[in-house]
Amino acid sequence: MAAKHHILRWERGQPTREFPDDLADEEPLEIRVNNHAVSVTMRTPGHDEELAAGFLLSEGMIRSTLDVLHIAPCVAARDGNVINVQLSPETKVDLQKLTRHVFMSSSCGVCGKASIDSVHQQFDPIEPDDFRIDVETLQSLPDALRKSQATFDKTGGLHAAGLFDASGKLLVAREDVGRHNAVDKVLGWALRGGLLPLGRQVLLVSGRASFEIMQKALAGRIPVLAAVSAPSRLAVDFARESGQTLVGFLRPGRMNVYSNGHRVGGL
Amino acid sequence: MAAKHHILRWERGQPTREFPDDLADEEPLEIRVNNHAVSVTMRTPGHDEELAAGFLLSEGMIRSTLDVLHIAPCVAARDGNVINVQLSPETKVDLQKLTRHVFMSSSCGVCGKASIDSVHQQFDPIEPDDFRIDVETLQSLPDALRKSQATFDKTGGLHAAGLFDASGKLLVAREDVGRHNAVDKVLGWALRGGLLPLGRQVLLVSGRASFEIMQKALAGRIPVLAAVSAPSRLAVDFARESGQTLVGFLRPGRMNVYSNGHRVGGL
Repeated sequence: MAAKHHILRWERGQPTREFPDDLADEEPLEIRVNNHAVSVTMRTPGHDEELAAGFLLSEGMIRSTLDVLHIAPCVAARDGNVINVQLSPETKVDLQKLTRHVFMSSSCGVCGKASIDSVHQQFDPIEPDDFRIDVETLQSLPDALRKSQATFDKTGGLHAAGLFDASGKLLVAREDVGRHNAVDKVLGWALRGGLLPLGRQVLLVSGRASFEIMQKALAGRIPVLAAVSAPSRLAVDFARESGQTLVGFLRPGRMNVYSNGHRVGGL
Repeated sequence: MAAKHHILRWERGQPTREFPDDLADEEPLEIRVNNHAVSVTMRTPGHDEELAAGFLLSEGMIRSTLDVLHIAPCVAARDGNVINVQLSPETKVDLQKLTRHVFMSSSCGVCGKASIDSVHQQFDPIEPDDFRIDVETLQSLPDALRKSQATFDKTGGLHAAGLFDASGKLLVAREDVGRHNAVDKVLGWALRGGLLPLGRQVLLVSGRASFEIMQKALAGRIPVLAAVSAPSRLAVDFARESGQTLVGFLRPGRMNVYSNGHRVGGL
């Protein structure tokens, strides 16, 4: 459930060491019911049979083991990212109602690499540029975002996303119960203001960095994505293949740089 | 972006006070493109035009303000939970590709109440029962779950869900980059083991409690849902209407009880 990636750790304003770090794994899983694709979800590989069964239970499609003949990975999908739930003949299911997210499914198979390639068909990787942000400024951003989080202070319950320029000025901050929604609101704010592409900005998210967050940052052409918490393995892969700088565990005095560290430096 | 609910705080093993607490708001938003529903997402109301624009940007459907004629709430939807993006005539869009999650949309309108009712059509509320868990046991669960989180310790990047019995024994724990996936894996584990309904168990999640998490707990017939962090407003509404006990900010020595507190008590 974890994969190793070489990363660069910064402490006290200096890059202190490069080392192989453990990252939470993330890969798409296509769930099929009677061999019809009904869902693609980003998940951490492992216990996929349980994930498929629990998903169908939550959706009201199955109620007990009696509804299921067997659950098994599709042999044809070499990477183990497709699982089929074969229902009992007497179990009725409305596949039309269940089908969602299947547009992500790719003809070349379902895997992290294919997911990245699929995004790159719509959004080119970011070309090398001269955008830079200095370490001290970068490490001051979480405090600035936190100060803008009026609702979080009251409820403790919201994700936040903030857009900053290279001087550390907060351009916009948005909060939402959904991490991806907070980022969508920031992107929508920029689009409606005619500010795209965001080639000289940094996007900070209050939680973790996933594949989906990196995809949204790329859609906005944002060169630097920083997260207060950990990135997933696929987020790092995505950032490396998309020319994005990815920073995790960002806080005063320290951070981890996962990709394209040239945009982060001293003055 | 926040709503007040009366909750009961427990400190040092005692209920200390009942007071109106701020909860992060959560309601469904139906996004339409040229008046076709393409997505329903749970979000915190506010900046909905930005959310719709950012979502369509991320999906590669629009690139700039030139692609959009206007974005406006549907007047017919009184609750403000439907928004329409009218594209410029020259903007081509593949609505088929974009459509997802629309099965949640309800004929009686899109709102939190309708979302709860829709779930109750599939899953009855939990009837009053004699299931109890004592406070000390309950408050020991986060530590037990954390100790089981092998991958989190390494990566800092995973959500966890754990199923416990009333004595505090951990039955199963699952981790995933997706909060809902961790819960699905626990439910699927129980279903495959023939353990449903889970009427004498407690489900603990490492993060926040949302509408979707409460729905999944109800699908498993779990009477008590505990979260280490905050619940959303709709999660609390859902728990109250579904007969579920909802506990938030659970940690040694304190917690907040949001609904059906009779299942939590001293010995």
